[in-house]
Amino acid sequence: MNDFNFYSPTEFVFGKGRETETGKYVRKYGGTKALIVYGGGSAVRSGLIGKVQRSLDENGIGYEVLSGIKPNPVDTPVYNGIEICRKSGIDFILAVGGGSVIDTAKAIALGVPYDGDFWDFYSGKARPEKALPVATVLTIAAAGSEGSPDSVITKTDGMLKRGTGTDLIRPKFSVLDPELTQTLPAYQTACGATDIMAHVFERYFTNTKEVEITDRLCEAVLMTMIKETPRVIADPDNYEARANIMWAGMVAHNNIVGVGRDQDWNSHGIEHELSALYDCAHGAGLAVIMPAWMEFVHKHDVMRFAQAAVRVWGVKMNFADPEATAVEGIRRFRSFLHSIGMPINFAELGAKAEDIPVLVDKFGVGSGETGGFVHLKADDIAEIYRIAAKAEL
Amino acid sequence: MNDFNFYSPTEFVFGKGRETETGKYVRKYGGTKALIVYGGGSAVRSGLIGKVQRSLDENGIGYEVLSGIKPNPVDTPVYNGIEICRKSGIDFILAVGGGSVIDTAKAIALGVPYDGDFWDFYSGKARPEKALPVATVLTIAAAGSEGSPDSVITKTDGMLKRGTGTDLIRPKFSVLDPELTQTLPAYQTACGATDIMAHVFERYFTNTKEVEITDRLCEAVLMTMIKETPRVIADPDNYEARANIMWAGMVAHNNIVGVGRDQDWNSHGIEHELSALYDCAHGAGLAVIMPAWMEFVHKHDVMRFAQAAVRVWGVKMNFADPEATAVEGIRRFRSFLHSIGMPINFAELGAKAEDIPVLVDKFGVGSGETGGFVHLKADDIAEIYRIAAKAEL
Repeated sequence: MNDFNFYSPTEFVFGKGRETETGKYVRKYGGTKALIVYGGGSAVRSGLIGKVQRSLDENGIGYEVLSGIKPNPVDTPVYNGIEICRKSGIDFILAVGGGSVIDTAKAIALGVPYDGDFWDFYSGKARPEKALPVATVLTIAAAGSEGSPDSVITKTDGMLKRGTGTDLIRPKFSVLDPELTQTLPAYQTACGATDIMAHVFERYFTNTKEVEITDRLCEAVLMTMIKETPRVIADPDNYEARANIMWAGMVAHNNIVGVGRDQDWNSHGIEHELSALYDCAHGAGLAVIMPAWMEFVHKHDVMRFAQAAVRVWGVKMNFADPEATAVEGIRRFRSFLHSIGMPINFAELGAKAEDIPVLVDKFGVGSGETGGFVHLKADDIAEIYRIAAKAEL
Repeated sequence: MNDFNFYSPTEFVFGKGRETETGKYVRKYGGTKALIVYGGGSAVRSGLIGKVQRSLDENGIGYEVLSGIKPNPVDTPVYNGIEICRKSGIDFILAVGGGSVIDTAKAIALGVPYDGDFWDFYSGKARPEKALPVATVLTIAAAGSEGSPDSVITKTDGMLKRGTGTDLIRPKFSVLDPELTQTLPAYQTACGATDIMAHVFERYFTNTKEVEITDRLCEAVLMTMIKETPRVIADPDNYEARANIMWAGMVAHNNIVGVGRDQDWNSHGIEHELSALYDCAHGAGLAVIMPAWMEFVHKHDVMRFAQAAVRVWGVKMNFADPEATAVEGIRRFRSFLHSIGMPINFAELGAKAEDIPVLVDKFGVGSGETGGFVHLKADDIAEIYRIAAKAEL
């Protein structure tokens, strides 16, 4: 096991109707005037934004709003949000939505007290030193941004999708009401579930030895997703399954299942180029990329893939041919993703094999390497896109 | 799943030699003068106290010391510690030790800013409203106090063992260096492992339905303990197994595996009377009590016990007789505890069956009931002691 620090100070406020307590928690964490960041009209039509505003009113918290945040969030609203905050004396950023809204809110929180361009933190030009406090009211179980120190934003100029991470933008509190996710269409629900599983697999496939506790915790989240996701696809109103998925989504990404081990994250990076180019859902892109990545890298550690196959997917160990066990685990993952309505190849995603050179170029590894489990060069990444392009059940 | 709040703001500083960073973290969390609380001479002889003091010196942190804290910690040193703090202007309590030292440190932290008797918080007479900041350098994986909001203290007058819990005494940071646990005797190591497993089982046996995510997380910790504990009993210097157990011990008790579900905790309460009366190790008492409690209550939810047997202990499900599966799981638990050197009945623990009326009386349930999974009356508690008294493999 590697040495590590683990710090997850977010207060999670979990359960039915708890978004009505938002104002109380903003006050608890020192906010006096908030910027409410949200996405489209559904949050208004469902009455959620109204509930949050009433809760702020009741607690004497002023607010401004920034709406219209879209999936695969870009930089433009971040600049708008920073301007509003500076003009209006905002001291607290409240995201009401999913990963895109939360990541935008985090970018604004970093940008307000910074003299330069907030993009400096995403391009790697500068390290954040302060941020406004951020909190969230979560509406989809997926990104894990409600409990993570991460934010991913796309720069409109060049459509570069880049991330940053700092404890400064760990949410002060996150309201997790599973009821808010019951109105989500099946496709978005499945995209979220895929993202959650991918967050675990990016940590699971590691070269670090002797990590039984985090292996087992990773497997716990994966087995939960395998049980609960088909239930919400079949019955979107199943509160209990929604609740299990919502907590699993947080556990998957606040890093409690990932400490003490090298992690990979190439599947995320390779996917980001798909969602940046085609504006597809991140989860859908991961459904296409992650099994392809697994097929490309599994020979690097057959026994680790066999362990996942046996422990997570219930495959019988083939002692005469462990690789067959490993491959069967990957096959079951892709088959599971297909069963919940996810695309499994470029055609189903709406991507084009002829764009692969463009995707590889944008990925930007150049003549270098990337990844924590298997180091990949540009040619390897091209091959993973090719496997993903033509994948079949 | 029940509604819940989850808040675990402790920064965990995990790895080899990281106790040399203690002073840096005391400074980070605002301490200027610390009370170092520790146990016996071994912490001095091993050089640990010296290392911590040097680290405080290097960071300009002053300190006083309070030593001699014993297992099953009592109130006397708490009063001494409070007095030292008030006299010397202490603003930070640093526990260097295991659960007894940490629980004492937490009690001092509560007592210093309180005008009345600190015991008020343990007797239920008052609720804590403030506390000095607490941090820990952990030397045994067991109590989970390094990440929990809890403290258990015994009042010398009457030997009453009582606990309190408040987020105010969650440690600001906890240094977890698995190397520090390599010198522990096998018996203490096994007591710690038993305590960790008991913390999970107290949460696992619940009447709350639809808690797959926390069920699976509980099982993850238990399976880790079943794999790693025999390795450290066989080879105390096995750093990797020690590291897995140390992180498992924190995960078992900061409540990430227990949120959203009713919990029981009767085994802990029933055991506390044993360790209060005989001054035996808490973990050893749990090894005697918990399987007995399981035998007494398992008919309340045979399928939950069968699930534990199958998922955790690898028992084959007996579909014709699920109770046989459940009972086999309990048998394997007791057998496992025996295999790591734990006592399994009163004789091996040094307790006496003729004291059972005294134990039941001290437990103090009177004509009432207690427990979250199965409500127990005084007669039930007596029967559990009787099962424990005469248990055999």
